[in-house]
Amino acid sequence: MVKAYAAKSETSGLAQHTIERRALRPDDVAIEIDYCGVCHTDIHYAENDWGGTIYPVVPGHEIIGRVTAVGEKVSGHQVGDVVGVGCLVDSCRQCSACDEGLEQYCLNGMVPTYNGEDRHDGSVTYGGYSENIVVSDRFVVKIPAALDPAKAAPLLCAGITTYSPLRHYGIKKGDKVGVIGMGGLGHMGVKFAKALGAEVTLFTRSEEKVKEAKKQGADNVIISTDPKQMEAATQVFDFLLDTIPVQHDLNPYLNCLKYDGTHIIVGLLEPVEPAVEAGALVLKRRVLAGSLIGGLPETQEMLDFCAEHEIDCDVEMLDIKNINQAYQRMKKGDVKYRFVIDMKSLKQTAA
Amino acid sequence: MVKAYAAKSETSGLAQHTIERRALRPDDVAIEIDYCGVCHTDIHYAENDWGGTIYPVVPGHEIIGRVTAVGEKVSGHQVGDVVGVGCLVDSCRQCSACDEGLEQYCLNGMVPTYNGEDRHDGSVTYGGYSENIVVSDRFVVKIPAALDPAKAAPLLCAGITTYSPLRHYGIKKGDKVGVIGMGGLGHMGVKFAKALGAEVTLFTRSEEKVKEAKKQGADNVIISTDPKQMEAATQVFDFLLDTIPVQHDLNPYLNCLKYDGTHIIVGLLEPVEPAVEAGALVLKRRVLAGSLIGGLPETQEMLDFCAEHEIDCDVEMLDIKNINQAYQRMKKGDVKYRFVIDMKSLKQTAA
Repeated sequence: MVKAYAAKSETSGLAQHTIERRALRPDDVAIEIDYCGVCHTDIHYAENDWGGTIYPVVPGHEIIGRVTAVGEKVSGHQVGDVVGVGCLVDSCRQCSACDEGLEQYCLNGMVPTYNGEDRHDGSVTYGGYSENIVVSDRFVVKIPAALDPAKAAPLLCAGITTYSPLRHYGIKKGDKVGVIGMGGLGHMGVKFAKALGAEVTLFTRSEEKVKEAKKQGADNVIISTDPKQMEAATQVFDFLLDTIPVQHDLNPYLNCLKYDGTHIIVGLLEPVEPAVEAGALVLKRRVLAGSLIGGLPETQEMLDFCAEHEIDCDVEMLDIKNINQAYQRMKKGDVKYRFVIDMKSLKQTAA
Repeated sequence: MVKAYAAKSETSGLAQHTIERRALRPDDVAIEIDYCGVCHTDIHYAENDWGGTIYPVVPGHEIIGRVTAVGEKVSGHQVGDVVGVGCLVDSCRQCSACDEGLEQYCLNGMVPTYNGEDRHDGSVTYGGYSENIVVSDRFVVKIPAALDPAKAAPLLCAGITTYSPLRHYGIKKGDKVGVIGMGGLGHMGVKFAKALGAEVTLFTRSEEKVKEAKKQGADNVIISTDPKQMEAATQVFDFLLDTIPVQHDLNPYLNCLKYDGTHIIVGLLEPVEPAVEAGALVLKRRVLAGSLIGGLPETQEMLDFCAEHEIDCDVEMLDIKNINQAYQRMKKGDVKYRFVIDMKSLKQTAA
């Protein structure tokens, strides 16, 4: 019996619950969880915003812990290693995407860390709001010793989500990169783009975020609600990393891209409305594209990059019994920039 | 005094008209026009569909002719050469886009072949529905001897518009390419994709076009109105070349792309409605992008490629006095696949 926090219905909020973890398969790693970041996606699943939530749901896909046991065929991880588990725990491992280490785009569908279906026994996957987890070794990454494990937790979702497109599009010294929005994703985007050598501009609606953006490493800030500032940025940027999680007008941003510039959506899953002007794409060969987290090799690369460049996430530590209040604060954008549950707070509760 | 055909208002249709051509500047090439292709854009300008038409407008940007004189500084073209002029006749020549030979994306604005403003004297540019034209040498391409000049005319717009994105995205042997729509652009897209070694599928609403598509070189045809055929194509394609010039739902096509697949718009300048699902982009790292004709170096490359691969455009020759009927037929899609004006028909008219 494993202690966890689960939502039992769309309106229940989260409360303590018990789950079971499977016996180790030959390729499995058992992990005692120390920290788990709290992602907006957790709220969407807890409250069934996207439909398809299987209750009870145990959220959490920014997991840091220590290896407590390994299956007989595991050679890459040892008991005592500090490791991480992100948004996915399995994939078909046979398609071209898996072969390329792009397990998140598995042609047969990746298995998410929670609310997924195990490919072997059909059981529902439970996430990191729990004492421990059992995950196949391929989907476990190593946390470099130089990283503070608590601050590393959100790297496994917020970090890789912003790192992957910057790397995929080859962002380099001298590139003009705009990061749109500065929440959990945006502040990581600023840090990564800066570390890759880009000249970084934060786009924000809020004058209040100017000082904060510069503290995070932004060279410039554009107030996106000021038409003059937006107009002055016409055809300026090589790359825009759009972290806004709600519908918004992309057209003013597209016009800020130079010819051959790229606008990447990482935070939005809804229809793109207002409609994108096809002319903005055609007349300057601009690119609008999406990006989803990252594959396992790239997630490891990102963690190593963070260790090398002393990058981590700005976090606020959370006692798991306050998770529901944390969700309310996140809905108001009231966190800089990610809550991370200290899992000691779960272990200390009565079973 | 140069004979031409012009529209004098949105509703006038085209009629004979006279224009003047400038005296040769040092870098100018004077061209006696033999053939001029008729592009849908010509209709849009003649009828002011996009606003901004300056009347009288002389359309035509698929121009083939012979050099009759050159300015004192012209070394690349000689009297008697068979040459072509496409959609643009000037650009700033100083920005990064011009430096890269991407004059169509000039940061200071390219000068279109008609309805543009000359950068030197501010005069309005007049297109190829005329006896002759004077164009700066940088914007004049050579027509390889192996090409039939009449059938080469539409290569200067329909050809380069489809060739450029296929090359920019590195389409190669074995790639699965879909061409959406088979008009003037689409039939060229099929020919080019095939010549580049791709496995080519035509998407069309019309069963009638199946045989024709295969004649043009398509390996497969998908009837886009058949949900079963579309469903069966989920995650199949590397690249889609979308030549449809009117609003249409992109989402069923996006779902046909594999992860990392690219959907290129070349025919649409309006808002993308119905709205694109951001999830279709994000969840598979798909790309939606545009592409506009091509720069001068790539246009020359395309012509040489056509000579090497024996590619030209399927054309129907037109007497210029029938231009208004031709426009009516084009509006109904009743041409395989491009009208080309035989300019002898203009020269033979009374002044």
